Amino acid sequence: MKQLIYLDYAATSWPKPPEVLAAVLNTLEHSGANAGRGNHSLAMGTGRVLVRARAALAELFGVANAQDIAFTHNTTMGLNMAIRGVLKPGDHVISTMTEHNSVRRPLEYLKRTLGIEVDYLKVNNEGQLDLQELSDSFCYNTKMAICNHGSNLLGSILPIEEIGSIAKKHGAIFLVDAAQTAGSVEIDVGRMGIDLLAFPGHKGLLGPQGTGGLYISPQIELEPLILGGTGSQSESSEQPSVRPDRYEAGTQNAPGIAGLLAGVLKIKSVGLHSIHQQEWQLTQLLMGGLASMKGIRILGPQQGEKRTGIVSFVMEGLDSADIAHRLDREYNIAVRAGMHCTPLAHQAADTLKSGAVRASVGLDSTEHDIDRVLAAVREIQKSSRSR
Amino acid sequence: MKQLIYLDYAATSWPKPPEVLAAVLNTLEHSGANAGRGNHSLAMGTGRVLVRARAALAELFGVANAQDIAFTHNTTMGLNMAIRGVLKPGDHVISTMTEHNSVRRPLEYLKRTLGIEVDYLKVNNEGQLDLQELSDSFCYNTKMAICNHGSNLLGSILPIEEIGSIAKKHGAIFLVDAAQTAGSVEIDVGRMGIDLLAFPGHKGLLGPQGTGGLYISPQIELEPLILGGTGSQSESSEQPSVRPDRYEAGTQNAPGIAGLLAGVLKIKSVGLHSIHQQEWQLTQLLMGGLASMKGIRILGPQQGEKRTGIVSFVMEGLDSADIAHRLDREYNIAVRAGMHCTPLAHQAADTLKSGAVRASVGLDSTEHDIDRVLAAVREIQKSSRSR
Repeated sequence: MKQLIYLDYAATSWPKPPEVLAAVLNTLEHSGANAGRGNHSLAMGTGRVLVRARAALAELFGVANAQDIAFTHNTTMGLNMAIRGVLKPGDHVISTMTEHNSVRRPLEYLKRTLGIEVDYLKVNNEGQLDLQELSDSFCYNTKMAICNHGSNLLGSILPIEEIGSIAKKHGAIFLVDAAQTAGSVEIDVGRMGIDLLAFPGHKGLLGPQGTGGLYISPQIELEPLILGGTGSQSESSEQPSVRPDRYEAGTQNAPGIAGLLAGVLKIKSVGLHSIHQQEWQLTQLLMGGLASMKGIRILGPQQGEKRTGIVSFVMEGLDSADIAHRLDREYNIAVRAGMHCTPLAHQAADTLKSGAVRASVGLDSTEHDIDRVLAAVREIQKSSRSR
Repeated sequence: MKQLIYLDYAATSWPKPPEVLAAVLNTLEHSGANAGRGNHSLAMGTGRVLVRARAALAELFGVANAQDIAFTHNTTMGLNMAIRGVLKPGDHVISTMTEHNSVRRPLEYLKRTLGIEVDYLKVNNEGQLDLQELSDSFCYNTKMAICNHGSNLLGSILPIEEIGSIAKKHGAIFLVDAAQTAGSVEIDVGRMGIDLLAFPGHKGLLGPQGTGGLYISPQIELEPLILGGTGSQSESSEQPSVRPDRYEAGTQNAPGIAGLLAGVLKIKSVGLHSIHQQEWQLTQLLMGGLASMKGIRILGPQQGEKRTGIVSFVMEGLDSADIAHRLDREYNIAVRAGMHCTPLAHQAADTLKSGAVRASVGLDSTEHDIDRVLAAVREIQKSSRSR
């Protein structure tokens, strides 16, 4: 069997850097106590890991006060904390057709249970919004604007800074889903006018699964979604207002967060810009190769345009799940196919029926990987024609 | 410095068994893909880890269908999912004074926001309920009975089976917080009439932090607390009803869950009964030693009575935080002190002002550990008298 080619970075980065593995193991072995709960040295060691990870993330995202970042189980939990922590009956929300189900499902739930209103703005073929239409969509009761920074299907990158400034002009809270960009595309919450930023720990930030976070602007006080012990104001029956405790009830994933810290340090040492450049070059190579084959349609931004490490495509006459299955079984290439938890983006890209094959590159991807996947796709296409 | 004596098992078990470390590392290294999301072999390997862990937990807790167990970030998240997923305006809840803030704070929040009613039943000195009073507390609108299996302050074990049968008789949903018992005291959801069971992965079950779970009886459909991508029914804007997907939105902590599986297998190989017996013998030894010193009051059940591995105590004239601090700095003994996120239990034990020192034993605790802590406490007491 040929060596594995991993092109599913958009689901989770892999392999994790050795520093990440070492940090997880070290924390499990040597400071396995509960942060903020014990008076003994082990527990304090664990607490320090959380403090350092919070500081590293704050620096990465341009957050002035690290206490404004809360750790979460995953991006989805951060998005739910943000959405359900802000919206009240009668509120209006502006979002987009490229949102993941982790945004759409909470919104649809609140539509049904609280009677909020939601507009999902259309995107064009390249996954871009009409900013004039965005501006025109705000009304007197628009409480939030919510969008992804990068689409998990199309690879498109939204102009967060412009969207943030439009949201600000209309006095709306701006929530960004950075699932596909944290760690590979620059994010600065101040400059971009981001009030709430949900991010995963295990994708671009290279940490282990079971980690993520939510930045909460000091101007915003969310109703907490999860209430419980915080190790602070223990005698009070109310969730404390002090941050990050207010948003971090219960035992945190200390070994995971230690790994996340190692991942963020790795990104800083390689450089965010280099990571993004390398990913972009590989997607261009992949797109060039795919474009040279007949009957393949690439979704999202055109070649030469800005995009994340994601390249999704459909192949005429072939089911996307079959392609992915053959890539896995016959070529040992890991991609993802089918529906990508974002039905409206599929609708926009006209792939609701076909699904799409999604190849996504990351830190350890190489030109060789792209050559291998292109050769494989060529062979699959050929063999399916001769059948 | 003397070798570390770890007596904070009630916060988190430590050290984790080598099998747990190996499983976490192995999953991070070799199957770092997203369960249920990819079509490739790596992702399927991750999926199998979750399936096996779920099956092992189901067997441990007498759960017929493993799909009725959802993984959570921690016990607190499971308790919030259960409490906020069931209760509606006008509902009445019966709970106890020994609940942790992870039960009390969500209840108080719903009291304030939904107008539910809550009764916290009194406990006696030994942490026990009056079962007649419990029976008498049910009214026409009692929707839930919620209690811990073991108190995190007193070490008391509540008679879950009797409480479950009383709850059933009154048609109430029975939620049990097994934070202090899962993995060291027998739990059988069928026999004990438990409808909802929240448990940690990182305490008695010996897994890493960032893991836990919630058993949800097939008779109960919770409103999901966290909505998002599930890899199933991806085209629907509603959270799918299929289990466990309905309650597991977003990426799960696969390496953590692999470690949890290893922890559960370890418990099965040692035997739940042996673990409980060993813990009990050590607590008896500790209690005997403490009882022989003047001015020390032990909380919870008397010597000889059933209890978990927790022994909390107060020492006349000495602050509990000071004692813990000295145990740590001068004797390298890790205990926890102060308030234990359960203010009503402190009230019941009359330790709201003093706090309490909590020593808790677990799998790797030995008689030697107990001798060391007793000698240290004796010295601390002596030196404080001579001051």
